[in-house]
Amino acid sequence: MESPLGVWLGEELFGVSIVMSDHLASKHVEVSAVCEKLEAYKGKMLRPSMVLLSWKAVNQTNCSCAPERVRVAGGVTELIHLATLVHDDVLDDADLRRGAQTINCLLGNEAAVMLGDFLLSSAFLLCSTIRNPELNLLLGRVTNTLCAGELVQLSNRNNIDLSIDSYYQIIHDKTASLIAASCEMGAILGGGTPQQIKAMKKFGSDIGVAFQIKDDLLDVLGERSVIGKPAGRDLEKGKLTLPVIKMLGNNPSLKPNVITFIKNNDRDGLRDLLESTGSVQCAYEEVRVLVDSATKGIKQCVQNDASEQLCLLAEQINTTI
Amino acid sequence: MESPLGVWLGEELFGVSIVMSDHLASKHVEVSAVCEKLEAYKGKMLRPSMVLLSWKAVNQTNCSCAPERVRVAGGVTELIHLATLVHDDVLDDADLRRGAQTINCLLGNEAAVMLGDFLLSSAFLLCSTIRNPELNLLLGRVTNTLCAGELVQLSNRNNIDLSIDSYYQIIHDKTASLIAASCEMGAILGGGTPQQIKAMKKFGSDIGVAFQIKDDLLDVLGERSVIGKPAGRDLEKGKLTLPVIKMLGNNPSLKPNVITFIKNNDRDGLRDLLESTGSVQCAYEEVRVLVDSATKGIKQCVQNDASEQLCLLAEQINTTI
Repeated sequence: MESPLGVWLGEELFGVSIVMSDHLASKHVEVSAVCEKLEAYKGKMLRPSMVLLSWKAVNQTNCSCAPERVRVAGGVTELIHLATLVHDDVLDDADLRRGAQTINCLLGNEAAVMLGDFLLSSAFLLCSTIRNPELNLLLGRVTNTLCAGELVQLSNRNNIDLSIDSYYQIIHDKTASLIAASCEMGAILGGGTPQQIKAMKKFGSDIGVAFQIKDDLLDVLGERSVIGKPAGRDLEKGKLTLPVIKMLGNNPSLKPNVITFIKNNDRDGLRDLLESTGSVQCAYEEVRVLVDSATKGIKQCVQNDASEQLCLLAEQINTTI
Repeated sequence: MESPLGVWLGEELFGVSIVMSDHLASKHVEVSAVCEKLEAYKGKMLRPSMVLLSWKAVNQTNCSCAPERVRVAGGVTELIHLATLVHDDVLDDADLRRGAQTINCLLGNEAAVMLGDFLLSSAFLLCSTIRNPELNLLLGRVTNTLCAGELVQLSNRNNIDLSIDSYYQIIHDKTASLIAASCEMGAILGGGTPQQIKAMKKFGSDIGVAFQIKDDLLDVLGERSVIGKPAGRDLEKGKLTLPVIKMLGNNPSLKPNVITFIKNNDRDGLRDLLESTGSVQCAYEEVRVLVDSATKGIKQCVQNDASEQLCLLAEQINTTI
């Protein structure tokens, strides 16, 4: 079923898909065959939607339909996102993504690592076709941030003393930075004022962080059938998430319990403790604060149909499961 | 021990190293710690040498010392090369590289996959700092070619009927394309004529292919102590290389023998058969033809100290083991 945002953006999101599939088409049948397996990775195209909506929100021209270079920028952000998903699934040894088999499960780790590299490279090539050196720099910086976030997260695996600041830095870098960059790109291409560009970037960053906290909550609370991928991965991988960090901040004496849950991969035990200490609620509250900050910031900067859609999109993150 | 080329390029190759280490320096200690482990991956800096020499060969200015942007381009090519080595070692499950432990061996596959992504991203970011859209396009095209070459090679694993044309396409794409692009970048930045840029690119492509054939020969003939990494990987991975393809072209009846060698991972058996049928010699001859073509092409286009160094470098590939 198409999302309300998908309907609102109409043909333009479809245009982004066309840009992407044209760009990934290869003279080598072997490469095309691997790329075809990406079908299951296609989600709601959140990042291209952010590019398109940010462009529309600041655009002062009479043309309401995003020009080619905006659809191209949307494709760039989605290709980067796909590359991270493909490599994440290798690292997590995941077999399911949105209810379908992952690339590593279908074609093996080698093909998945190479496909991720190919997608990353394709994103940079596609961005270069816009011939705007600023956008290339912006993209390079955000992918560096993204990879650094992943490396920092990895070195903090099983770090029971991970600080809340470090947690926020990690999820900003590995998730929110790309969403922020998507908004920034759209606003730059739309000819937004420096204030508008800054506000759009801040909006993307806020909802990106909120989105990752929500994703972390789903991992500890959700069932495979609901989230389309195995739950409990964070615990298995020794990743400390917001409710756990909040709980330990309030009750340091619970550290040994958490260490035991990680050791035994006991998600039910962790979930019960998080719920009984109000830590899940506390994390949801944090999501609400971020969403409020995002929508408030954007409303101060621009008010039109597109900014309205951005706010609706942000508020969707508020729903609990 | 420093190579003669290293001495000739003097401070400039060192300048490329500085560009790279400055660029990889991170505010995150976790990222810097991972990057430090790359020390063992540093080789002869072939690709930056090609950028510098190609720049010098066509450069018409009075300045004999390569400017910052040329050293930056050299760093870009080496970062791409390092990224491929780091990911290759994950895919090959290799424990040794140039006689030292690989990143995957030291830090695990996850850190190695992420570091490879970080290096790829860092290369694009560094290239973007030159603010030349043509270079970004060139880089994007070459990394796409490189990844496609790896994917095509993977799908042809254990393909006993791999044609010689497909083999050449694969090694061009996965190895020679980056060396060709290094020469092309140097010639573009040096303000070479279209003919000179084309000739430099062709030179890089020829020696790149020759270099990969030589590398494939080392894998079947060499010992771990000589080549600094485990030998026999190609056979283990079901990769058909030039001497095998040549041998099967001349003696199709030997196919069952080759299938058995692959199945049993019997490198000694394969080597003996390749040597007795003259197939090793035949592959060396191919290397000689490519090196001759490379040096002839460059001599027709430009003759100075730098082009002389390029020819010397090409001729070094001719030595047998």
